[in-house]
Amino acid sequence: MESKKFLLQEKDIPTAWYNIVADMENKPLPPLNPKTKEPLKPEDLYPLFAKGLVDQEMNQTDAWIEIPEEVRDMYKIWRPTPLVRAYGLEKALDTPAHIYFKNESVSPVGSHKLNSAIPQAYFCKKEGVTNVTTETGAGQWGASMAMAAKHFGLELAVYMVKVSYNQKPYRRSIMQTFGAEVIASPSMSTRAGRDIITKHPNYQGSLGTAISEAVELAMQTPNCKYVLGSVLNHVMLHQTVIGLEAEKQMEMAGEYPDVVIACFGGGSNFSGIAFPFLRHKLTQGKNIRIVAAEPASCPKLTRGQFQYDFGDEAGYTPLLPMFTLGHNFAPANIHAGGLRYHGAGSIVSQLKKDGLMDAVDIQQLETFKAATLFAQSEGIIPAPESSHAIAAAIREAEQAKIEGKPRTILFNLSGHGLIDMAAYDQYLAGDLTNYEVTDADVEKNLSEIEKIIK
Amino acid sequence: MESKKFLLQEKDIPTAWYNIVADMENKPLPPLNPKTKEPLKPEDLYPLFAKGLVDQEMNQTDAWIEIPEEVRDMYKIWRPTPLVRAYGLEKALDTPAHIYFKNESVSPVGSHKLNSAIPQAYFCKKEGVTNVTTETGAGQWGASMAMAAKHFGLELAVYMVKVSYNQKPYRRSIMQTFGAEVIASPSMSTRAGRDIITKHPNYQGSLGTAISEAVELAMQTPNCKYVLGSVLNHVMLHQTVIGLEAEKQMEMAGEYPDVVIACFGGGSNFSGIAFPFLRHKLTQGKNIRIVAAEPASCPKLTRGQFQYDFGDEAGYTPLLPMFTLGHNFAPANIHAGGLRYHGAGSIVSQLKKDGLMDAVDIQQLETFKAATLFAQSEGIIPAPESSHAIAAAIREAEQAKIEGKPRTILFNLSGHGLIDMAAYDQYLAGDLTNYEVTDADVEKNLSEIEKIIK
Repeated sequence: MESKKFLLQEKDIPTAWYNIVADMENKPLPPLNPKTKEPLKPEDLYPLFAKGLVDQEMNQTDAWIEIPEEVRDMYKIWRPTPLVRAYGLEKALDTPAHIYFKNESVSPVGSHKLNSAIPQAYFCKKEGVTNVTTETGAGQWGASMAMAAKHFGLELAVYMVKVSYNQKPYRRSIMQTFGAEVIASPSMSTRAGRDIITKHPNYQGSLGTAISEAVELAMQTPNCKYVLGSVLNHVMLHQTVIGLEAEKQMEMAGEYPDVVIACFGGGSNFSGIAFPFLRHKLTQGKNIRIVAAEPASCPKLTRGQFQYDFGDEAGYTPLLPMFTLGHNFAPANIHAGGLRYHGAGSIVSQLKKDGLMDAVDIQQLETFKAATLFAQSEGIIPAPESSHAIAAAIREAEQAKIEGKPRTILFNLSGHGLIDMAAYDQYLAGDLTNYEVTDADVEKNLSEIEKIIK
Repeated sequence: MESKKFLLQEKDIPTAWYNIVADMENKPLPPLNPKTKEPLKPEDLYPLFAKGLVDQEMNQTDAWIEIPEEVRDMYKIWRPTPLVRAYGLEKALDTPAHIYFKNESVSPVGSHKLNSAIPQAYFCKKEGVTNVTTETGAGQWGASMAMAAKHFGLELAVYMVKVSYNQKPYRRSIMQTFGAEVIASPSMSTRAGRDIITKHPNYQGSLGTAISEAVELAMQTPNCKYVLGSVLNHVMLHQTVIGLEAEKQMEMAGEYPDVVIACFGGGSNFSGIAFPFLRHKLTQGKNIRIVAAEPASCPKLTRGQFQYDFGDEAGYTPLLPMFTLGHNFAPANIHAGGLRYHGAGSIVSQLKKDGLMDAVDIQQLETFKAATLFAQSEGIIPAPESSHAIAAAIREAEQAKIEGKPRTILFNLSGHGLIDMAAYDQYLAGDLTNYEVTDADVEKNLSEIEKIIK
């Protein structure tokens, strides 16, 4: 076997993040104040977010934003991550395609989420913030934020979506071991939580609800900011270290991807690997397909509509331009907790609207079948989220086989599934099911939303 | 911060394992046939183990044994592993010591065990074996063997120590996801299991008992061999890739360790990091301390005696020369399941007898305190086993501080603890305790053993 991993050195960790907005012809529409419907100014966001992060959020001109030295030092714990040629998977599929994956699962918390947790904690600390709040789905973001907050000496409270709190107790323990406080959401500790518990006593939570709770707590706590693991522009920015490394590593491998694939929840790992390759498309006219793989049970890009909507369930956030299923959408309890979010971030939504990227939706059983094949052929048990990307990559490889043509596929392995084994147990026992969201479901939900927003 | 990780390339993966026996003045005593008390010949072991592995086991002359290309190809999945300068831990301890760790936790199953699982599966496959059996404590070895067996197309049955089967269900799921059969030990599926269940209905198992069951099944299954994750010479041999890489990486760091530390169960990760450095001591007279860190509840090196004993609870194995607590020793239910074994491998026992290495025993609470400090300062949650090495490294760093002198410490982080979070939960809740083994306990146990063996 030729080289399997393409490895960079610490000096190759990017020194700047890539801000794709600077290169977009159609910039994302601005976030709006829900009352006045006026575009937000940076000052409007300073109470909730660290100033340094708001400035990144609003930056539409600088394509490159320097990574602070303290952040790069922390990245050195596990970055650069390997790019891997998936010989085992190729063989199992008997495909002429070449399959590569960027292995973000090697981070000490097991996913790509640390890439943004560290700079967010850094900018909060730098501005004298003492407390931060956040939400987490499957717990990947919460675990990352807990690790980063401990490093920079911040107190952290995490609202963890209840279904994941129960499905994935180990991620809760990881956060607690790093010293964070973890609350199952919806909870009785906030008005947003109490309201939804009153209406739906058995509601198992969603990212949208957990965001409402975390925002509410941040607004009521002195010297406290809110941090978010996806959706927002500055999160996408931080994640571009993934694709920037992968770009160099594909060069080392002597290939260029025909298609770049990532799973899609709010867009963080997707943007991370995709934007640096989209840059070639935007600035050099490169012919490359970019594919977001989302759950069929939460299909915002494939079945949602492009419109202004709230980022959270209770309607605390600004109105964001997004492909959305409606902020009141209650996703099924699939194991890919990190993908259970109603909307796509503004940048991705604009790119999708402009036809610069594609999306596919994938059923839960197909993702676990793909995950098991990947584990058995590559030796790595993937996170249920990442398994959506694997399933989409397998579809591409099978298509290449049907066509009898080569194809170079790159996907992002956003995390490992070692803490998601209860899901694999259920899959192996035949206890998992698919969930369908129909156009009618989405239609109904969105018509309610329009009334709320108007 | 200067470079934190010292990284090698795939071409730097060792091409040969280091066989320390060739360099030992006093060779380990031979294994004996329990009936005749005669030294075993290779032929005596062929029914139970693959021939290629028996030949490695018995090799006392070749210091270097070539690593097959197929094995190196599999090593490329995650090797070389990083050597890390633990700046965060140094700062937290305010010590003049320089602390390095070899990070074996980056393997896809989370520990060093894969280093030996792959060659063992390879040699079995090469000789036409179709089925293999093994035992596992915490599940690190079983998970590794499951991954390797799947790759080489072998059917695997794993006896998992009952206390770990219940404490660590995720590791069971990992083995099953890789296609292995997992049985809680003691079980009713073997005579050895039935006997001990009859005598002690609530017995939670031990590695010694699980080995008996796996050996019994292997002997009764056509075309089946038994594989073991520790204790035996060929396992120590395979693990030397750890220390051989670390040797190069310490050179990159421009330092040489004053002390090399690893946790100790049967000796696999310990030998892996220690033997290549012990080589400098044996062949070049280098002044270096080598320290095994074992649990106070299973202190074979610090309180056991050097004598011939069985490797398993039921007495199926040959008699091995070892520091032992007695093969009938029932270790307390500590969370470091991989260290719950009554004896030390023959090579390590001889080295200890000859004063070429030291051992320390550490209480469970000290290991979890060390683990939590390490997690919070280095960002990596360690396995309970590896936490014994961390605790010993911290003792060294604190001693250096007391003396006000520099000291270069290298320890092996044999695995991560992401699947051991239930243990951290108990620790954080104050529910964990220490366990003491007294000299009288050991004395009593060993006097029974002598009667059994004579």
